[in-house]
Amino acid sequence: MKTLRDIGEDALIERLTGLVPQAADPMAAPGDDCAVIDQGHPTLLLLKTDALVEQVHFLRSAPARDVGWKALARVVSDFAAMGGKPEHFLVTLALPGEMEIGWVEDFYRGMGDCMQRFGGFLAGGETSGVPTGSAAVISIAATGSVPRGKVVLRSTASPGDVLFVTGTLGGSIQGKHLTFTPRVEAAEWLVNHHKPTAMMDLSDGLGKDLPRMAAASGCGFRVVEADLPVTPGSTSAEAIGDGEDFELLFCIAESAVAALQAAWPFGELPLTRIGRMTPTGEGSTLTGGWEHFRG
Amino acid sequence: MKTLRDIGEDALIERLTGLVPQAADPMAAPGDDCAVIDQGHPTLLLLKTDALVEQVHFLRSAPARDVGWKALARVVSDFAAMGGKPEHFLVTLALPGEMEIGWVEDFYRGMGDCMQRFGGFLAGGETSGVPTGSAAVISIAATGSVPRGKVVLRSTASPGDVLFVTGTLGGSIQGKHLTFTPRVEAAEWLVNHHKPTAMMDLSDGLGKDLPRMAAASGCGFRVVEADLPVTPGSTSAEAIGDGEDFELLFCIAESAVAALQAAWPFGELPLTRIGRMTPTGEGSTLTGGWEHFRG
Repeated sequence: MKTLRDIGEDALIERLTGLVPQAADPMAAPGDDCAVIDQGHPTLLLLKTDALVEQVHFLRSAPARDVGWKALARVVSDFAAMGGKPEHFLVTLALPGEMEIGWVEDFYRGMGDCMQRFGGFLAGGETSGVPTGSAAVISIAATGSVPRGKVVLRSTASPGDVLFVTGTLGGSIQGKHLTFTPRVEAAEWLVNHHKPTAMMDLSDGLGKDLPRMAAASGCGFRVVEADLPVTPGSTSAEAIGDGEDFELLFCIAESAVAALQAAWPFGELPLTRIGRMTPTGEGSTLTGGWEHFRG
Repeated sequence: MKTLRDIGEDALIERLTGLVPQAADPMAAPGDDCAVIDQGHPTLLLLKTDALVEQVHFLRSAPARDVGWKALARVVSDFAAMGGKPEHFLVTLALPGEMEIGWVEDFYRGMGDCMQRFGGFLAGGETSGVPTGSAAVISIAATGSVPRGKVVLRSTASPGDVLFVTGTLGGSIQGKHLTFTPRVEAAEWLVNHHKPTAMMDLSDGLGKDLPRMAAASGCGFRVVEADLPVTPGSTSAEAIGDGEDFELLFCIAESAVAALQAAWPFGELPLTRIGRMTPTGEGSTLTGGWEHFRG
């Protein structure tokens, strides 16, 4: 019998999505940063769920307030990558009974910090015990919104588009993975002034996420490895493979590149051209990235 | 240091809700079956999250298709208790890498069965590994909708209202907890023909849930224990304490009782008067019900 570890996350999702009713004409394909629901209103409804697992995404020794920030910021980052903002959060805590109340309170304070900064409020939650010795699991579901004309998918890149990333890549485990800033302001500026042809946030590492964007768009890609904005102290392999960068990866037409680079208003935040999209089958490949069931 | 086991779920939620931004004027108080969001449209948005934990809510030996049905049916039951219906589901699976793919596929088929029966579709999902030996955790988040005039809260009962339950209580662990039918049709009929003054679904047992409804409504209650519709083979204590009945508990004005009982169109589904709401501090108490961190 095959196990999850044998096939990995992407193949699993592909096998599962055909087994349940799906939207007849979804605006974003399964696998995009979040679901996009058109209810006929001027703003589109965004839906996202995300999970943090103890020993996988955080250690119990990590500051609980940082873990709470991270839990929400991951989802805020996904909404930003679609051009949107958060509205309502639902939090599910599956925790061992021996967990200290103070930990949970600090976790909530961290979520509160993130809502104060980026908007949205807590609309509901659920708590459950887990068997003694089991890892704590925290699941965040959220609704967001994006004006109809501003939504950006990951599946709409074209061969020839130029690839950019914000910030630096790699070494997130040194601390950034807990305290990162979702690129909400940068994404909003991009969408309003130099709308990307495709965009996503980097959560599993460039080596895993860029091939996903290329596959969704029916393209290949070519990355100039020497151009990667590697976090000081990290290697180029770590920049490709570490994951949890939570930076924006986006495409823009070659003709729009100079204007974008001249206008970029976020002095502190690097904006780096790293390659371009190619016709499918042409470009190159990347090796690395986070595999969820590697175990 | 106090742990979750020391204080229990209700006290925990009370301590946490003040730590994060909340809706300024929520239509449903925290603790209702789901959140009710007024976006200014003719239908209100319902939001709910719920979790199933291995060894707590299901065993790995349980038929995966039943577990998938249960995961969604619990949420559908919550929406029904507000007078609403499901629209979009998000599923988060935190699973050990040694889990068989066939299990996950059957779980999805069970979710598909429930969507086929009660509506809604899968809008997104997330999968993550958990450390080897940890319990699997399944979290379902969902949106639903209810026409503005049809929403029923648990916090709007009045002293003197008569208490009813559908179905029978107790013994759910014998199998019903996996294969129950959410009372969607009964709830819809009630809301359209004999709108309850308050309603909720019974998930943690009458002994835990009725006091919650009474507290939310600022009432007491008096239950006639001899009148409880006990599942054949169960005791009255089990009917109060077992939990996972997923029946409707609702209130209706005394003057409306005779018409309700005469018109009840669900021949197979018992409708039982079990007591009434009282002024706060007067009624009686119930002992029993599921405590999530008792573990």
